[in-house]
Amino acid sequence: MANHGKYLVIIGGVAAGMKAAAKARRESPALKITVVTDEPFISYAGCGMPYFIGDIIKDQKKLILREPPYFKGMHNIDVLTRHQATAIDIKSRQVKVRDLEKERDLTLPYDKLIIATGAQPIVPPLPGISLENIFTLRTINDVLKIRASVDSGKMRTAVIVGGGLIGMEMAENLTLRGIKVTVVELLDQILPPLDKDMALIVQKHVMEKGVEIITSDGVQAFEGNSSGAVTTVFTSKRQLPADMVILSIGIRPNTKLAQDAGIATSTSRAIKVNERMETNAPDVYAVGDCAESVHLVTGKPAWIALGSTAAKMGRVAAINATGGNDAFPGVVGTLIVKVFELNVGKVGISEQEALKEGFPIESTIVPAGDKSHYYPGARDILIKLIADKNTRKLLGAEIVGEGVADKRIDIIATALTFGATVDQIAKLDLAYAPPYAMAMDAIIVAANVLGNKLSGKTVGILPYEVAERLDRGERFVLLDVRTESEYKNGHIKGCKHIPLDKLASRTHELNRSQEIITYCRAGLRAANAYHILKNAGFHNVKYMDGSILAWTHGLEK
Amino acid sequence: MANHGKYLVIIGGVAAGMKAAAKARRESPALKITVVTDEPFISYAGCGMPYFIGDIIKDQKKLILREPPYFKGMHNIDVLTRHQATAIDIKSRQVKVRDLEKERDLTLPYDKLIIATGAQPIVPPLPGISLENIFTLRTINDVLKIRASVDSGKMRTAVIVGGGLIGMEMAENLTLRGIKVTVVELLDQILPPLDKDMALIVQKHVMEKGVEIITSDGVQAFEGNSSGAVTTVFTSKRQLPADMVILSIGIRPNTKLAQDAGIATSTSRAIKVNERMETNAPDVYAVGDCAESVHLVTGKPAWIALGSTAAKMGRVAAINATGGNDAFPGVVGTLIVKVFELNVGKVGISEQEALKEGFPIESTIVPAGDKSHYYPGARDILIKLIADKNTRKLLGAEIVGEGVADKRIDIIATALTFGATVDQIAKLDLAYAPPYAMAMDAIIVAANVLGNKLSGKTVGILPYEVAERLDRGERFVLLDVRTESEYKNGHIKGCKHIPLDKLASRTHELNRSQEIITYCRAGLRAANAYHILKNAGFHNVKYMDGSILAWTHGLEK
Repeated sequence: MANHGKYLVIIGGVAAGMKAAAKARRESPALKITVVTDEPFISYAGCGMPYFIGDIIKDQKKLILREPPYFKGMHNIDVLTRHQATAIDIKSRQVKVRDLEKERDLTLPYDKLIIATGAQPIVPPLPGISLENIFTLRTINDVLKIRASVDSGKMRTAVIVGGGLIGMEMAENLTLRGIKVTVVELLDQILPPLDKDMALIVQKHVMEKGVEIITSDGVQAFEGNSSGAVTTVFTSKRQLPADMVILSIGIRPNTKLAQDAGIATSTSRAIKVNERMETNAPDVYAVGDCAESVHLVTGKPAWIALGSTAAKMGRVAAINATGGNDAFPGVVGTLIVKVFELNVGKVGISEQEALKEGFPIESTIVPAGDKSHYYPGARDILIKLIADKNTRKLLGAEIVGEGVADKRIDIIATALTFGATVDQIAKLDLAYAPPYAMAMDAIIVAANVLGNKLSGKTVGILPYEVAERLDRGERFVLLDVRTESEYKNGHIKGCKHIPLDKLASRTHELNRSQEIITYCRAGLRAANAYHILKNAGFHNVKYMDGSILAWTHGLEK
Repeated sequence: MANHGKYLVIIGGVAAGMKAAAKARRESPALKITVVTDEPFISYAGCGMPYFIGDIIKDQKKLILREPPYFKGMHNIDVLTRHQATAIDIKSRQVKVRDLEKERDLTLPYDKLIIATGAQPIVPPLPGISLENIFTLRTINDVLKIRASVDSGKMRTAVIVGGGLIGMEMAENLTLRGIKVTVVELLDQILPPLDKDMALIVQKHVMEKGVEIITSDGVQAFEGNSSGAVTTVFTSKRQLPADMVILSIGIRPNTKLAQDAGIATSTSRAIKVNERMETNAPDVYAVGDCAESVHLVTGKPAWIALGSTAAKMGRVAAINATGGNDAFPGVVGTLIVKVFELNVGKVGISEQEALKEGFPIESTIVPAGDKSHYYPGARDILIKLIADKNTRKLLGAEIVGEGVADKRIDIIATALTFGATVDQIAKLDLAYAPPYAMAMDAIIVAANVLGNKLSGKTVGILPYEVAERLDRGERFVLLDVRTESEYKNGHIKGCKHIPLDKLASRTHELNRSQEIITYCRAGLRAANAYHILKNAGFHNVKYMDGSILAWTHGLEK
């Protein structure tokens, strides 16, 4: 027997737990591996659930990737479903387990223990919270219940509490099933990991798809009918009809078991681990949604529960628990979500997060094509980049659009992992052919724009800042440099209009003592106008990054 | 006037030249910028041309991105089309130019000169090469002539000479137009930048689409009819009917002008430049397809002519020529090409290139899904990774498949730029949601497989090596561990069949003194079988990387 002992116990049977089990078996043929889970199902695809509800995924079997007999037969791994770990005794190296079916207790000795207890949805203790048809979405049982309700054809209206990633995926999939959806979000924006300016673009799209979105409002109570099914959601300001409610306000790590055993957790309640996924208890590892990680951009602890991270953590813990040596260095906060026709991604930290962390920052928003504009099917994406002014290192990116966003998110995720500067990103040798990208990929274009701002070659201002200044009634010239017909189709209230090709000959119409902010459709002509005015001796000029394509504050005709 | 002088002359008006001109104008408002080109068109999309011929791009205007009046009006850049630069006088800083329309000479003084003369197709001096309907594809005139021929409806058969990227794009687009295409390639594989094993997968696909591919054969002559149009192509072994011929055997840099002026070129004939794109002549820069670069994986000079590189080089030269400071560090050999339904990409160096460079290498081929297998539209890709055995640094990747390849190529391109190890790639925080990727992205799965091989945890063998050993009549057991029905549907000749779930109980059927190579459909069960046999005390075991999905040498039933 190898020196890592005879018994490996894993608590939790979804992504991290089963990955750890399978990898441990490959590393150590003779190890006794036991997986304990209080759930009836293991190894299921939590991230696919919204799409099963939306009937994009037709067969529920597709959500269950593997069943216990597979692990026993193929890998000689014992999986105890409906067995709840009730206590961990670190000194005697034992896990106390309750067999929920036979209602009896057993004790599992371990030489190595991997905690993969996951996370659970937060259920606020509001009046009426126990009514029928108020759902969370986390387990196979959850998804089967929601799907059955939707399939019944009786659900006409749904309220989704919480406008995060799951909330948006559910808004899309319930809408696809013909249900009128209202999303209620306590914050002043949906998709809280994104900056508000980017989230507003998604919000506009979702509302165009028929979803009502209410922000800055909180749910306070639920009311039901005589048979105990929810009918109404009461917010602080409104009363909303609801045949069903999805609670997606967030999740919290399942770490009470670990805490009770004296295993250290963080302010996020997630279990503290080192790079080897070791907890403070000897021979005890924690992986997946119950474990903390490190954000490689801030260098600080971060708890970002994702299936992708869970699988990697599970693998690392398995290697270390079987006598090997592997490390999970951390995450860069990568997120991707499909929201109707939009691809929405984020990586690194947002502008607001960067400001909170005290970084001196410069940002830009750049619209660009996802492939050569002359190739059929080319679509726009809007890229926001945030960089450190002093080091010129990229801090984060947010991408929203109908075009391919996940590719660019992954390029930036890779670049952030290696601490890339904006200049290094601008020189990346990215794949180019018309069906795949522009000659200068959208990411490179955006990095060049930000590089110019960092070097002081251009001075830009983000659309939301312009909107704030207009709201405050500040005095400046907002200069629309688009064509006459573009201007007439809709422009920002109070702007002055001089088409770009007339600008050089009409600069006398502009007051040199006033601040001028140029805008166009996508930002390129605005930047050209910026240069024309600077060359004509105007000193106080800015151009609006992303211009109308990034403007979410309304136009007038 | 800034100290970078008054006159910037740029020779060449396509990607690199026009990018340099536009960027120089933004950097320096008062500079006199003149672009000289012998062509009638500027700023055109060379990479889009095959798709215009295939009628994927409908409007020829879409191939011309900008015309001279735009540059004059918007940027005050003088573009002299149909003006051929005939000599560069480095001492007196002058370019001699021939006006091809008015048939007169002029002299342009320069303070800074940017050479962007591009490259031209190689036209071999074979008998009959001047016949009608023998085309190259490089300029707008080329593409208009080919399109007109195809539109005439008289082209029934085409021979494409050269099976590189352009050859494959043309094979697809001519086939789309109903023309029977034969590709003749002198080497023993198409797509020479790829390893042969990966190229064979593309070749099989292309042949299934009705294209005939002849490798290891060279064109020797052309024969025509009485009106001087080509009718027949003679190779060393064959005689092929051809209503039209596309010559796509390669390109060479247009550097005679530079060489005559004493500007240093390399063995590739491309102009030698430093990171600032400076040539050995003072204040003379070279950019685009006529300029050399550095391959960041080998650290050696490389000439890889691409529009993406041209644009980046043009920008760097413009910044430096206008008194700024920018650097183009080099390329990582990134390529992408659509070939019918396949996406085909390469980055870094191939296995064969790595061996030639003397790297101690380990490789793998891993099939994987491009998104979660349960999400509709998920497709396979086949990933080949090549790494340095000593440093564990990745050296290159090749990806072929109907699934999304360009994303993974770009992730690897970014990772290679920063000298990533296989282990670092396996830990990347890549974007995960079912519509975009598997929980462990295909690249991470492949990196883990290669990591196991590098660590000696598994011993794999590439399919082409198995085929070579079978061809040599070597003795070993080829063990098919798929199901009965999979086996019956087609297996490798001479294999032994034991399904994976029976393997542990049937190891007595195998001779412990013989080498055993396991295979399955995609490699996963083959690796499991490898572990089962190792655990059962078999010492001489390998598994076949990629297995049947990467096997291109035929099956029997």
